[in-house]
Amino acid sequence: MKRSLASLKWNIQQETKQIVSVANAADKEVLIAVKTALKEELCFFLLFGDETKITNIAESIHLDLSTDGLVVRHESTNSDIARSAVMAVHHKEAQILMKGNLSTNEILKAVLNKEYGLRTGNVLSHVALFEIPNQDRLLFLTDAAMNITPSLQEKVEIINNAVQVAHGVGLEEPKVAALAPVEVINQAMPSTVDAAVLTQMNNRGQIKDCLIDGPLAFDNAVSLEAASHKNIHSDVGGTADILMVPTIEVGNALYKSFIYFANATVAAIISGAKAPIILTSRADSAESKIHSLTLALVSSKTF
Amino acid sequence: MKRSLASLKWNIQQETKQIVSVANAADKEVLIAVKTALKEELCFFLLFGDETKITNIAESIHLDLSTDGLVVRHESTNSDIARSAVMAVHHKEAQILMKGNLSTNEILKAVLNKEYGLRTGNVLSHVALFEIPNQDRLLFLTDAAMNITPSLQEKVEIINNAVQVAHGVGLEEPKVAALAPVEVINQAMPSTVDAAVLTQMNNRGQIKDCLIDGPLAFDNAVSLEAASHKNIHSDVGGTADILMVPTIEVGNALYKSFIYFANATVAAIISGAKAPIILTSRADSAESKIHSLTLALVSSKTF
Repeated sequence: MKRSLASLKWNIQQETKQIVSVANAADKEVLIAVKTALKEELCFFLLFGDETKITNIAESIHLDLSTDGLVVRHESTNSDIARSAVMAVHHKEAQILMKGNLSTNEILKAVLNKEYGLRTGNVLSHVALFEIPNQDRLLFLTDAAMNITPSLQEKVEIINNAVQVAHGVGLEEPKVAALAPVEVINQAMPSTVDAAVLTQMNNRGQIKDCLIDGPLAFDNAVSLEAASHKNIHSDVGGTADILMVPTIEVGNALYKSFIYFANATVAAIISGAKAPIILTSRADSAESKIHSLTLALVSSKTF
Repeated sequence: MKRSLASLKWNIQQETKQIVSVANAADKEVLIAVKTALKEELCFFLLFGDETKITNIAESIHLDLSTDGLVVRHESTNSDIARSAVMAVHHKEAQILMKGNLSTNEILKAVLNKEYGLRTGNVLSHVALFEIPNQDRLLFLTDAAMNITPSLQEKVEIINNAVQVAHGVGLEEPKVAALAPVEVINQAMPSTVDAAVLTQMNNRGQIKDCLIDGPLAFDNAVSLEAASHKNIHSDVGGTADILMVPTIEVGNALYKSFIYFANATVAAIISGAKAPIILTSRADSAESKIHSLTLALVSSKTF
């Protein structure tokens, strides 16, 4: 796999430009990301929102709305904006959905609509891809933001959702570490029990297109030396591509420790719907927004 | 607080040398740590174990057993060794207990013995102190290793145990962040509910000698910018000294991400007994063993 998030851009298929549907583009940060993406020729955009507001903000950042590959569609209320942006993906006018200046609840409500939404039957889950300065490969973490205490079946779908994105970045058979505090099964720790079951489901072909091993403690998953010290001789131990955490508590803390203590950069999308969904927040850097867009673009063909 | 773990050595009181009781010193790595500590004049040692084995290993690493402050007491079986080493602390011959070449279960069994053990009524908990290269202060993490899913009352004791150690390193009123995935109370996440209760117990004086705030997500606890972004204006947000995690799953993953991804160094002891207990493992570096010994020495006066 590529070493840096920036280099993922090389994997974007350029024959036919993909179109990103933005739900409420009336936001300076969002339009700056749009401008950068257009300049770097990453994709085209369908911008939903109040046309006057979008026009005013675009002028203030010198974004020419008549640029090729940029279309503005006027909607006034956030619920109309969310519905129209989602419907554009539903009708295959666009390949990716991006959250702009509205709440996560507003956009997810439209995504989950039974009539025009983007449901597949799978849970939606958060898939983050990290570039960590002292590690030699990119590393997925899931689910750090959507599912609080996933059941075994939900963990199966969370793994499938992450594997789908991993295929998009070129990992044919990603290695999945089912994380727990220890590498042995301890019935007092449900994470170890679920991890063992997921491993055997993978052995039986019930979870495909990846290699799963667990329970693995964090060190057993990322360090060959630590794995060897514990006599773990699997194809996953020490070389995991995907860290699957047992709860949002573990995922959220790890996610933020990578960013704040390990100086990591991150790309993140929501997987499990009919198209990748980008849920950037105001706290994300401009660089992080472009990384997430890139991750969505390279993985959309697998959706 | 001091910036580095190494500088904690300056806090060791040197008027009367403290004595460390080592349960099974017949181990090369352990005796190397003993030799280093003697050379640095950190403390004295009572070494329990097979005298012949200890003598042979000492010779092989050029450790002179007739050095001032070094006493060997012969015991043959691990259970006798554990009992005698613990009894030396029970009878105040030594101020600190250190695990040598026996299992954690063997030493804890003796520690928890009702007759000659070191019980206080509190739970025993793991207290780790990290030096993280990109952070400007040392940071405690608890409990990453002993209590799997602590109850509210156990969390109270875990906090008290960590606060006791924090006092030892010179923090008069340590700031405790009760970690959760979000900063708002969400009844679907018990960690957020417990964190809110612990905060109010602190306000009511039921948990003393520290400042508690929670729920705080990891970023709200360690970054003033992130705390301010979420409108968290507490004395703890962004400047926490102690990260109190809700489960061993969170603590273990964070502990190892600090070490493996953030290049952290760590000192760790068990708190909650009548004396600090050092549970080093073979995987610990020699430097880490000395850091843990130092942490025990500077905090033993608070036990």
